[in-house]
Amino acid sequence: MGKLDTSFIRRLVGENNVLDDPADLYIYGSDSSVHEALPWLVVRPQTVEQIQDLLRHANEKGIPIIPRGSGSGMCGQSVPIKGGIILDMKAMNRILEVNVKDGYCRCEPGVVDDDLNLALKPHGFFYPPTPASSRIATIGGEIANNASGVRSVKYGAAQDSVLGLKVVLANGDLVSFGATTRVSATGYPMEKLLVGSEGTLAVIVEATLRFVPIPKFRCLGVANFNDLDDAGNAISEIMASGCQPSMLELMDHVAITAVNKAMDLGLPDVAAILLFEADGMVKEAVDYEIDKAKIICEKHHGAGVELSYKEKDRTRIFSGRKKLFPALSKYKEFLSSTSLADDMAVPFSRMAQTARKIHEVADKHGIVMTAYGHCGAGCMHTKILMDTTKKEQWRAAEKAVAEIYEYVHAVGGTTSAEHGIGLSKAPAFKIEKQSTLALMREVKRAFDPNNIMNPGKLMDAPDNWVSATRLRYSTTE
Amino acid sequence: MGKLDTSFIRRLVGENNVLDDPADLYIYGSDSSVHEALPWLVVRPQTVEQIQDLLRHANEKGIPIIPRGSGSGMCGQSVPIKGGIILDMKAMNRILEVNVKDGYCRCEPGVVDDDLNLALKPHGFFYPPTPASSRIATIGGEIANNASGVRSVKYGAAQDSVLGLKVVLANGDLVSFGATTRVSATGYPMEKLLVGSEGTLAVIVEATLRFVPIPKFRCLGVANFNDLDDAGNAISEIMASGCQPSMLELMDHVAITAVNKAMDLGLPDVAAILLFEADGMVKEAVDYEIDKAKIICEKHHGAGVELSYKEKDRTRIFSGRKKLFPALSKYKEFLSSTSLADDMAVPFSRMAQTARKIHEVADKHGIVMTAYGHCGAGCMHTKILMDTTKKEQWRAAEKAVAEIYEYVHAVGGTTSAEHGIGLSKAPAFKIEKQSTLALMREVKRAFDPNNIMNPGKLMDAPDNWVSATRLRYSTTE
Repeated sequence: MGKLDTSFIRRLVGENNVLDDPADLYIYGSDSSVHEALPWLVVRPQTVEQIQDLLRHANEKGIPIIPRGSGSGMCGQSVPIKGGIILDMKAMNRILEVNVKDGYCRCEPGVVDDDLNLALKPHGFFYPPTPASSRIATIGGEIANNASGVRSVKYGAAQDSVLGLKVVLANGDLVSFGATTRVSATGYPMEKLLVGSEGTLAVIVEATLRFVPIPKFRCLGVANFNDLDDAGNAISEIMASGCQPSMLELMDHVAITAVNKAMDLGLPDVAAILLFEADGMVKEAVDYEIDKAKIICEKHHGAGVELSYKEKDRTRIFSGRKKLFPALSKYKEFLSSTSLADDMAVPFSRMAQTARKIHEVADKHGIVMTAYGHCGAGCMHTKILMDTTKKEQWRAAEKAVAEIYEYVHAVGGTTSAEHGIGLSKAPAFKIEKQSTLALMREVKRAFDPNNIMNPGKLMDAPDNWVSATRLRYSTTE
Repeated sequence: MGKLDTSFIRRLVGENNVLDDPADLYIYGSDSSVHEALPWLVVRPQTVEQIQDLLRHANEKGIPIIPRGSGSGMCGQSVPIKGGIILDMKAMNRILEVNVKDGYCRCEPGVVDDDLNLALKPHGFFYPPTPASSRIATIGGEIANNASGVRSVKYGAAQDSVLGLKVVLANGDLVSFGATTRVSATGYPMEKLLVGSEGTLAVIVEATLRFVPIPKFRCLGVANFNDLDDAGNAISEIMASGCQPSMLELMDHVAITAVNKAMDLGLPDVAAILLFEADGMVKEAVDYEIDKAKIICEKHHGAGVELSYKEKDRTRIFSGRKKLFPALSKYKEFLSSTSLADDMAVPFSRMAQTARKIHEVADKHGIVMTAYGHCGAGCMHTKILMDTTKKEQWRAAEKAVAEIYEYVHAVGGTTSAEHGIGLSKAPAFKIEKQSTLALMREVKRAFDPNNIMNPGKLMDAPDNWVSATRLRYSTTE
């Protein structure tokens, strides 16, 4: 902390763009995870040159630099576990170019996802990796975490949309990776390596992105299942049939109950609901996919199947899923929703078993867990609902998280689908990727020899997430 | 060379799987590029364990290891510029798993592209990155070069299909990257970094790949243009319109003439032909896309537009494009087709200008060049047709290649679309990626500290491709 020359930094970015008030440091000390650790300083860079100068300074002095978007990360990716400077990138929010004739756009990392999509809409295009938090999530944060969202089953994740990146390296050098063209085989695809690197390799200062045409037609289907296994079998068969939904979502009984309590939507009291959508440029193509999914749902005892082509109906039906995350806190009095074991990816055929395992582990440990997610992409989300004031509930959560990831790995799944690793998922990540951790450390060293970029994360994170940082919750016992 | 303990290697892989006859070394000393350099030994590993043992040995002794598929690479990727051992991976050609219910397949690197697609076909799926050489190209080679092919405009390149890789590192360790699931945000996406790394980082021993449903309907359109600029404008407008062709191919006048001479197809004697295809699960979706492309072609003076839904007609129309590469050698007596400046990617709106620039540069230097390619993905191919017996033609080719890449970089293009860098494109690559070469070297060092993996390629290749190796052609003057 003594290393910090705040007067140099104030001169560099301007007095107004440096925050060191304890209240500000407190705000920037947490994100949407359970973690909390105070930065030494918050800097809001306005230009690439400021970032270059700041990184040269930090690299020389060994000061940790933690790039941060809107702080919607659920695993502590931007929590400054080693202190240092939080780089709040939100001021760098210009959309630099929408180049329709060449099929790409360029933007700064602080651009909010919805704003980018607003800029693309008049041209008939959209940027597909849209997380539920698209109203606040920044493009830089989405790239750093390989975010995706409800339509990843058809349109992929951030890594599928990134064509090129400009980044500032730890030594202050500004370099460009990738290209503007749809294909490129020009040496190591460094732009792809950066997607999901969680701020540990470099500071992203510009992204070149693909976009795709907005479909003219959509249809949303919903099916209710009295048995979770039936829903799981429907998911697996839909995907194996060659059906190409633009969305395929699972909600379990806990999720359904929470939504009903929070929103009074009157969802049926069943074991699982599947939401499936198809989109396309002609109605016949949408019908083809949606009918295929519908027939498979019905074959697996999906009841009350309803298909909605009208936007109003689709919005109403989907509103429960969309508001699920905040709704979860309404599930039961005194239970708070925590981002723990918050996402994972499992093979389609293991979706139902994984959901059942999650419920079983939760019951065993006296907590509540829900299973939902973008199942058509293998993505399963959950949350732990618990009385966060009780220490024993945290101990239960710790065991539950470990057991769930043990199961996920055993069935061939992976630790994160789209929320990243940060601190909370690092123990499971380190078990899963054991054989490559040393190599990942060497790759980080290649980019950042003095280890200033978001240190203490991913392969360098503590082995226990509970004790990794202070937790953002007070316990009374 | 004295380092080589051939008796150890013979014991390791078996006498029959080691080649050191001068005739064999000669064959493995070249690929489909202009380059030639003899290996010390050719080894045909049969198992992963043999590769691990061999790499441990090579790493200790500092022996170069050059993985090789079918040798269809056009830039010298598998030419052993520093000597060493060619690892012929073709014997490791098992398709290990076609897992339809979980949406992935696993195969060894020596599997031939067409064979993988034959295995997927009964399930209704295909593996999209299919180069023109799919009858011989191996999956390992395609991944190492981020290959794509005629349908990359809709289905992307190898990097879009690779979910996971098993690789043997230079130190002999066997490690797994990636996952089997459609999305994953589990730390650094090392599996993506390997795609396009041209054997310089590790030996790929297994790939986990996505596949996509085979469309039920296809339509191929063809349009003739008297002006290259009109064809270029049509390409750019088709892509900007949100049209989603499954193929969008350009053939210039040289390509048309060559095909007519070789195949007697009677293609019209025009400045350019565009081939455009749409595919889908319902005919209406195909009609929508194909009609959109047709109208845009006609708007830009595309004549004789013909649409073919029948496979027989599509095969006939496309046969000229499919056989273009061998046909080029028939363009004019004494002119041979060489893989020089063989591919590049440029923004859609620069496609026609780039083709014209290629012709202009060729004329200026007294050689013949053709421009064609998968323009919907920004991919432009060319070849230099020249009298390879004449030294002055090689000097002309050298100048032409440099001038063309200078232009490609100036208009925002990139050095390779899908053929990779190797040796021939390394000078242009090193200019384009100047600011990141040092970082790429550090990344290679992280994987391969003793620099045994395909050394002397990409960022470490010579600055002059003409003198980089012996050329595979005799000159008489």
